[in-house]
Amino acid sequence: MSKAQQEEKYVYFFGDGKAEGSAEMRNLLGGKGANLAEMSGLGIPVPAGFTITTEVCTYYYDNDKQYPDALEKQVMDNVAKLENVMGGKFGDATNPLLLSVRSGARVSMPGMMETVLNLGLNDEITEGLIVRSNNPRFGWDSYRRFIQTYGDVVMGVAPEGIEIDPFEAAIEEVKEKRGIQDDLDMTVEDLKTLVDMFKDIVKKRTGQNFPTDPIEQLWGGIGAVFGSWQADRAITYRRLENIPGDWGTAVNVQSMVYGNMGDDCATGVAFTRDPSTGENIFYGEFLTNAQGEDVVAGVRTPEPVDRLKSRQPEAYQTLEDIYQTLEKHYRDMQDIEFTVQQSKLWMLQTRGGKRTAAAAVKIAVDMVNEGLITQSEAVQRVEPEQLDQLLHPTFDPTFERNVLAKGLPASPGAASGKVVFLAEEAEEAAEQGEQVLLVRLETSPEDIGGMNAAQGILTARGGMTSHAAVVARGMGKCCVAGCGDLVIDYTANQFSVGDTVVKGGDWVSIDGSTGEVMLGQVPTQEPELSGDFATLMSWADEFRTLNVRTNADTPHDSAVAREFGAEGIGLCRTEHMFFEGDRINIVREMILADDEQGRRRALEKLLPIQRGDFEGIFNAMAGLPVTVRLLDPPLHEFLPHESDQQEEMARRLDTSLRVIQDKVESLNEFNPMLGHRGCRLGITYPEIYEMQVRAILEAAANVGSKAVPEIMIPLVGTVKEFTELKIMTDRIARAVESETGKRVAYLVGTMIEIPRAALTAAEIAEHAEFFSFGTNDLTQMTYGYSRDDAGKFLGEYVEKGILENDPFQTLDQTGVGQLVELGTKNGRGARGDLKVGICGEHGGDPASVHFCHNIGMDYVSCSPFRIPIARLAAAHAALED
Amino acid sequence: MSKAQQEEKYVYFFGDGKAEGSAEMRNLLGGKGANLAEMSGLGIPVPAGFTITTEVCTYYYDNDKQYPDALEKQVMDNVAKLENVMGGKFGDATNPLLLSVRSGARVSMPGMMETVLNLGLNDEITEGLIVRSNNPRFGWDSYRRFIQTYGDVVMGVAPEGIEIDPFEAAIEEVKEKRGIQDDLDMTVEDLKTLVDMFKDIVKKRTGQNFPTDPIEQLWGGIGAVFGSWQADRAITYRRLENIPGDWGTAVNVQSMVYGNMGDDCATGVAFTRDPSTGENIFYGEFLTNAQGEDVVAGVRTPEPVDRLKSRQPEAYQTLEDIYQTLEKHYRDMQDIEFTVQQSKLWMLQTRGGKRTAAAAVKIAVDMVNEGLITQSEAVQRVEPEQLDQLLHPTFDPTFERNVLAKGLPASPGAASGKVVFLAEEAEEAAEQGEQVLLVRLETSPEDIGGMNAAQGILTARGGMTSHAAVVARGMGKCCVAGCGDLVIDYTANQFSVGDTVVKGGDWVSIDGSTGEVMLGQVPTQEPELSGDFATLMSWADEFRTLNVRTNADTPHDSAVAREFGAEGIGLCRTEHMFFEGDRINIVREMILADDEQGRRRALEKLLPIQRGDFEGIFNAMAGLPVTVRLLDPPLHEFLPHESDQQEEMARRLDTSLRVIQDKVESLNEFNPMLGHRGCRLGITYPEIYEMQVRAILEAAANVGSKAVPEIMIPLVGTVKEFTELKIMTDRIARAVESETGKRVAYLVGTMIEIPRAALTAAEIAEHAEFFSFGTNDLTQMTYGYSRDDAGKFLGEYVEKGILENDPFQTLDQTGVGQLVELGTKNGRGARGDLKVGICGEHGGDPASVHFCHNIGMDYVSCSPFRIPIARLAAAHAALED
Repeated sequence: MSKAQQEEKYVYFFGDGKAEGSAEMRNLLGGKGANLAEMSGLGIPVPAGFTITTEVCTYYYDNDKQYPDALEKQVMDNVAKLENVMGGKFGDATNPLLLSVRSGARVSMPGMMETVLNLGLNDEITEGLIVRSNNPRFGWDSYRRFIQTYGDVVMGVAPEGIEIDPFEAAIEEVKEKRGIQDDLDMTVEDLKTLVDMFKDIVKKRTGQNFPTDPIEQLWGGIGAVFGSWQADRAITYRRLENIPGDWGTAVNVQSMVYGNMGDDCATGVAFTRDPSTGENIFYGEFLTNAQGEDVVAGVRTPEPVDRLKSRQPEAYQTLEDIYQTLEKHYRDMQDIEFTVQQSKLWMLQTRGGKRTAAAAVKIAVDMVNEGLITQSEAVQRVEPEQLDQLLHPTFDPTFERNVLAKGLPASPGAASGKVVFLAEEAEEAAEQGEQVLLVRLETSPEDIGGMNAAQGILTARGGMTSHAAVVARGMGKCCVAGCGDLVIDYTANQFSVGDTVVKGGDWVSIDGSTGEVMLGQVPTQEPELSGDFATLMSWADEFRTLNVRTNADTPHDSAVAREFGAEGIGLCRTEHMFFEGDRINIVREMILADDEQGRRRALEKLLPIQRGDFEGIFNAMAGLPVTVRLLDPPLHEFLPHESDQQEEMARRLDTSLRVIQDKVESLNEFNPMLGHRGCRLGITYPEIYEMQVRAILEAAANVGSKAVPEIMIPLVGTVKEFTELKIMTDRIARAVESETGKRVAYLVGTMIEIPRAALTAAEIAEHAEFFSFGTNDLTQMTYGYSRDDAGKFLGEYVEKGILENDPFQTLDQTGVGQLVELGTKNGRGARGDLKVGICGEHGGDPASVHFCHNIGMDYVSCSPFRIPIARLAAAHAALED
Repeated sequence: MSKAQQEEKYVYFFGDGKAEGSAEMRNLLGGKGANLAEMSGLGIPVPAGFTITTEVCTYYYDNDKQYPDALEKQVMDNVAKLENVMGGKFGDATNPLLLSVRSGARVSMPGMMETVLNLGLNDEITEGLIVRSNNPRFGWDSYRRFIQTYGDVVMGVAPEGIEIDPFEAAIEEVKEKRGIQDDLDMTVEDLKTLVDMFKDIVKKRTGQNFPTDPIEQLWGGIGAVFGSWQADRAITYRRLENIPGDWGTAVNVQSMVYGNMGDDCATGVAFTRDPSTGENIFYGEFLTNAQGEDVVAGVRTPEPVDRLKSRQPEAYQTLEDIYQTLEKHYRDMQDIEFTVQQSKLWMLQTRGGKRTAAAAVKIAVDMVNEGLITQSEAVQRVEPEQLDQLLHPTFDPTFERNVLAKGLPASPGAASGKVVFLAEEAEEAAEQGEQVLLVRLETSPEDIGGMNAAQGILTARGGMTSHAAVVARGMGKCCVAGCGDLVIDYTANQFSVGDTVVKGGDWVSIDGSTGEVMLGQVPTQEPELSGDFATLMSWADEFRTLNVRTNADTPHDSAVAREFGAEGIGLCRTEHMFFEGDRINIVREMILADDEQGRRRALEKLLPIQRGDFEGIFNAMAGLPVTVRLLDPPLHEFLPHESDQQEEMARRLDTSLRVIQDKVESLNEFNPMLGHRGCRLGITYPEIYEMQVRAILEAAANVGSKAVPEIMIPLVGTVKEFTELKIMTDRIARAVESETGKRVAYLVGTMIEIPRAALTAAEIAEHAEFFSFGTNDLTQMTYGYSRDDAGKFLGEYVEKGILENDPFQTLDQTGVGQLVELGTKNGRGARGDLKVGICGEHGGDPASVHFCHNIGMDYVSCSPFRIPIARLAAAHAALED
C-alpha cells in the first residue's frame, strides 16, 4: 500500500459532545452516521462510537473483498477512544463494554442490510456483565440473543430445505420440555441451556466454534455489514429504488446502551410535532424497562411520551431540551429514538420525520410563522405528489376495509355507491338521487354521461391511461381501472370475484388512491383547501416561472380549474361535446352522409351548438387563453357498436340497420390509434374542421375581447398538413371578420404528438404559433405501446425493472424527452417567440413538470385536480435552479 | 439598371455550325436549348435560333414581370444574326422569315407550357410567303393556325362557361356551310374566310386588334412562354415531380422550317436503336409533305424511316451520318426529330431516348462492347426500378385487356387463375393441378398456404404494405390489393364489381404491376435473366460496397434469393413457420395452456420442428449469415377468429368452444401493432424465446461451420429488454455447447423499429452486436400511421401533395431517416464494429438503398425478387460518391 493511502482517513469518531463528522457528510458517513456525528457535535448525549466510511465499502468491492491496510489500526484506535469516553472496556470481563454494528447508507434502505448487537460477549464477559448490571437474566438473555444473531448474520447458520430455523427450534425444544409457552417464562437456567445449545448448533452447522475473541467478533460484524451491501435483496431493492451500487454503505460501530436493565431504564420513539396533523406538540411513546424493538413489536402497550415526565423527570427534561434543540438545529420536524439507561438519557437516532400531507403543509406554514424557515424552504418541504391526498375525498381511516379485489389506482378519491352496469342506468339512478358506482368491462366515449352521474367508476380492463382513467381524472372522479379479477356478466346484471357474486344494486366502495375494491358502504371525508394550504400555494406561485393551465372541456370544468388556480386552458377537447344530449344524432347523421353536401347539412346544425359551447368556456375563462383542439378521434368512435343501439340509430335516422352496419364496418380499423383521425380527418373532410373553426371564432366574436382562442390542430406529422389547415383557418377567420364586423385575435398551433412532428419541428414552427406536446400519444408512438393494451405487460415490466416507471405516468426523459427537447429547441430556433406547452397526463406529474421547466417550456396543462400539484412542482423546479 | 447588369448575357445564339451554348449548359439554357446549341456546335444543320436563359425567367418573376433592360437589344441583335444565317428577313414580305417560340426547362415538362409557331405573319407577309413557297394553301393555313394559337396562348381567348372553343366553332361553321367534314377538304377561300373570322373573334373577345407587327408578336410569344411557367397546371406538375419553382424556363426562338411545302419535304422522328428491344438498328418513321404534329396525330400512316433512303437519298444519307454522330457524341441512344424542307435536312431535336428495361440493359451492354461507354456508365444507364419489369412474368402486350376494376399494384407480375375464396380451397385445387387466383377481403397469416398455392392474390382491402402485399412480394407472387370496388360475398361464393358478378371457378387475371383486374384468361410471358442482364449485374456488383441480403423464411425462398444474388438473409421471420401443417395446433396448444409448464410442454414438441427449419435454411445459405428474428406477432394472430374454425380447434384440442372464445377475447387488442408482441412476449413468456434460441443454436451445431446464425430480438424499445434477452440467449448457448460438445459462433442483435430504440441506440449498442432497421414499423410509429389502415387517407395525401411519396414504399428521409441516421451514428459511436442493416420493404427501394449507402450501412435486405434492383441501386449509389 502506498504512503498516501496509509494516511487516508477511513474512520470518524463521535461521542462526548464532539464529532469528527457532521450532517453534511451524509455521502461519506451514510445517513445514520452523519446524524449521530451531528448530534454529538451539538453536545447531545449519544453513545460514543465511530463510523467506517462508504469509501471503505467501495474499496472492499473493488479489491476482492480486502480492506485498506490502514483500516485495522484506525478501527482499534477508535475503539480505544470510545472506551475512554464510555468508561468501560471492550473485551474486559470486569468492566465490560459491548458494541453494536449497524449499516448506514446514504439513503435509508430499511431492513435490507445486517445489524449485530451485543458484540463483545463470551462466557467470561457475560458473567462480568451480570455482576455490573446485577441482573443475571439480562446477561444471559443478551448472550443468547448475540449468539443467535451472530450465528445467523456473520456465520451463515440458516435453515436447510424446509426445516425451521435451528435456533428457533432449540427455543421451542426448551419451552416444550419446561411446559411453558411464553419466552418471558424462561428461567435463567433455561437461557443458559440455550446458550449451550446455540453454540452446538453453530459448531455443527459451520464446523467452527463460536468465536470468543471480541476483536474477532467485531471484524466479523463489520464484514457482515459490508457483505450485506451486495446481498440479493439489497441489489434488488437498489434496482427498484434507483440507488447506484457504487454508493456503498458505511458501518457504524457504537457502544451499547440498555433500556432494559431495570425500572430506571426506558426506551422510546417520538416526533417533535404530530406527524398526522402537524400540530406543534411533542408526540411519541415509550416503555419502561424495555428494548427498542419492544416498542415496535407491540408486545406491551407503550405509554404516551409525556408520562415520562412523572416517571423520570430529569431524563424527560433533558429529552425536551434535546428535541427542541434538534428541531431548531435541523429546522424541521424530527423523528427521534432514545434510551434511558439507569436514569441517563441517550439519543440513538434523529432524522426528518415522515408526515401526512396535511401535516407537511401545516408544519411548513407554522415554521415560517415561527421564523424557523423561509417561505421558499416551506414550499420545498411539501412533496407535490403528496398534495393529491388533500384534493379528493378519502375514506374514514378508522373504518375497517373489506377488500374484495384490487385494480389500478386510476383516479384518486373515495367513492361508495350501488353497482350499475350501464351508463344510462347510472344517469337515471342519479336523477333519482341515488349514489351509484358504474362498473364496466371498459368505458367508451358513449359512457361519459353515466360516468359523470356516478360516484366512481370501476373497470375490469384498461390501464392507467385507458379511456375510463383519463376521463375520470379529468372529472376529478374516483376510478379503479383494469381490475382483472372482476368477471362481469352484463346479461345477469352482476359481477363476481372468485366465489363472491355482486348483484346490480349492491353497495360497493372503491379507493382510487390504492385501487382497492370493497364490499359495502364506507364513510368518506371531504378535503379542506383553504387556510394553510392556500397560504402555501400562494408562496409557491411566487417562486414558479412555469404557467399552469388545465385540460377542460366544459364551462363547469373550467370554473373548477380556475378555483384550483388554472391560468388558462391548455387542452379543450371538442370530441366530448359531440356526445352530449341530442348532438350525437347529428354527428351520426354527418357520418352516414354519402357526400360532402350531406355532411355540410348536418354540420350546419352542429355549428350553433358548438358555438354555444365555446361561448360558455370563453366566458368562464374570461381573459385567459383557451387552446381548443379540433376533432381528434376516428369517426367510428361516434357510432354504436352494439346491435340494439345500431337498431335504434337506424330508427332515429330513418335508415336501415344494414346501412349502419356497413358504415361501422367500413370505418373499422385494425389500429385506430394509428388510423384515420386528428388532422387526417381535417384534410379528408375539411368541412368538419371548417365548422369547428367557425364555431370558435364566431363564439370569440360574440364574447368579445375576453375570449383568447388558440386553435390547435392535432396529430400533425408533416408540415404540409399544418399549412393546409392553417390556410383554411385564416380563410374562415377573414370570413367571420367580414360577416360580424369584429376582429378576433387568435393563434393557430399544433399538438406535437407524432414522433415525426418533433423531428421536423423546425419546419412546422415556421408556420405554427404554438406547440403543445401531446405526450400521451407521443409516448405511445415513441415506445410503440398502445395505452389501452399495454396493461398486459407494463406491470411486469415495471416489476422486473425493465422500465423504471410507467411512461404514461412519468415522462420518459431518456427517450420521449429527447423528442420533446429537440422539438422545443428546433421549434424555437425557427420561431423565437414560439409558445410551448405540454398537455396530457404528464402535465400533472411532478417529475415531468420539472423536466418541462428545465427545457424552458411556457406552461404545463393538466386535469383540474392536478393543478395544485403542478403549481407546487413548478415552484420546486424554479427553486432548484 | 446598373452597368454590370447591362453587360450580362441573357441570349445565346446557335446556327450555321456554331453555337454560344452547349449541352453542359442545361441549367441555363434548358434541355432543349442546350441540345440545339450542342448540335449546332457539332456542325449539324439546325434552323438557326437563340435561347433566352432561365435567369431571365427568374428575373422576370423577381421583378414584377419586368425583363432586364439589356434583354431587348440582345434579342433584336440575335434576330438579325439568324436572319443573316437563314437568308430571310423577319417581318419582311418579300423574303419572309418566320419564327417559333418554345419553352425549355432544365427537365422536360411535357405539355405543361406554351409554344407559338409561325410567328411573323400578317396579311402582307402571308402573301409574300405564298409567293416564295408557290403554295397558297400552305400560306393561308399557316396564317389561320398562327392566329388561332396566338389568340389562345398569348391573347387569352378561351371558351366561356360551357361553350366550345370559339375558333373551333368557326371552323365547324365554315365546314357546315360548305357541306364538308374533313379539314383537308377546305379550299384556299375557306381558309381566307377563317382568317377573317378568327381576327373578328380576337377583336370581340379581347377588345384588341390582332397584332400585325411581327416584333410585337415576338415579344407577345416570349411573354406567354415565361407566363406559362407559373400557370396552375405547371405549378401542380412541378409539385408532383419535385421540380423547384425557381429553376425557371428558358425560351427558344428559332427559325421555322417546313416539312409540308411539297413532295420534296418530309418530317419524322427516330431512335438511334430500337427502344423496345435495344437492337442496334435505326428505328423510326416519317411522313412526306407533312408537319411534325401529323406524325404524332396519326391521321396518315407514317412510313418506316429506312424508306426515306429511296425517296430522298441525299437527305437520308445526311440523316444517317448525323444520327451516328449524335450517338457517338452523346454516347447514348438518341430520340431525334427532323424535317426535310425542299430536300434539305434540318434537325429539330435530339435527346436521350426512353426505352424499355430490356432495351436499357441490351443497349448498355452493347455500348460497352462497342467501346462507347465504360462499365460504370453502363451500370448507371439502367434505372434500378426498371429491372422490376424483367423479374416477373408479364402479360402478352398484344392481348387486349378487359379491365374490370383497379386496385393497388401490390406485388408485380401477371397471373391468371380460377377464382377461389378460401385458402384451403386454393391448396386443394392446386394439388389437383388447377391454376387458381385467391380472392379475399384481406389475408391473414392463416392463409399463407393458400397464397403460396395460388397463381396470384387479389384483396378488397389493405394497402401496399398489408399482409397480402408484404407476403406476396416476399413470395414473388403477383398481388393486387385494396381493390375497393370488389364486393365479396363469401357465402354466395362470388364477388361483384358494379353489375358484373364473378363466381368461384370463373377465370380472372390480375396485373400486379398496374393493379388491373381483368375478366378471363390472359397469356403470360416468362422473364429472361441470363445474358446481358447477368453481365450488367456482374458489373454492378463490382462497383457497389453495400451488401444485399434477402428476407426469406424457407429453404426454398433462400435458394431463390441466392439465384438473385443474395449475400445472406437479413430477415428470417419465424412466425410463418408456426403456421405450416400441423404446427399451428401445437402453437395453439401452447397459447391455451394455463401456465408456464403447460406452455413448455407444447414448446418441447415444436423444438425439433423449428430446429429442422433452421437446418434447412442454414444449409441453403451455406456460409452466408442468416439473421433470424425471434417470434414477433401477437399471440392472437395464431388463433382462429371465425366460429367454425374455433369449433374445430376446440375439437382438436379436446376442449370447449367457450375456452377458445375466452382466450381469443382475453388476447384481443385495441391496437395490436402497439401491443403485446415482439420481445414483449419474450419477456413475459421467456419459454417461447428460449425454445427458439435453442432451435437455432442446435441447428447450427448440427449443420456445422457453414451455419452463420445472427439472432435478432424484435421490437426492443429499452435497453433492458435487450440485455435480459441477451443474457437468456447466452445462457442457452452455453447449455447447447455443453450438451452437444460443439461451439457455435453467433451474434445477438436487435431490430431498431421503435422510435425510442433509435433515440437510445448508444445504450443498446453497448450490448447488441448488430442493428437491423425495421423501417416498416419504424415508419408506422414515426408517422403514427397503421399500414393496414392508412389506405383510407394515404392516397389522398399523396395526390394532394401533402406527402411526396407513400412512406411505406420510399423511406422518408426527412423524418424517419433522421432516426435511422441518428441510430446508426450513435450505435457505431458506442460500438465501432456494429453491423448495421435495414430489412423490410425499403431495402428494395432504390432511393432508400441510396440513403442506406450514404449513411454507411453494411447491408440492405429485401424480398428475393427485389435483390437485383437493390444490387443495381447500391452500385448507382457507390458510383455517385
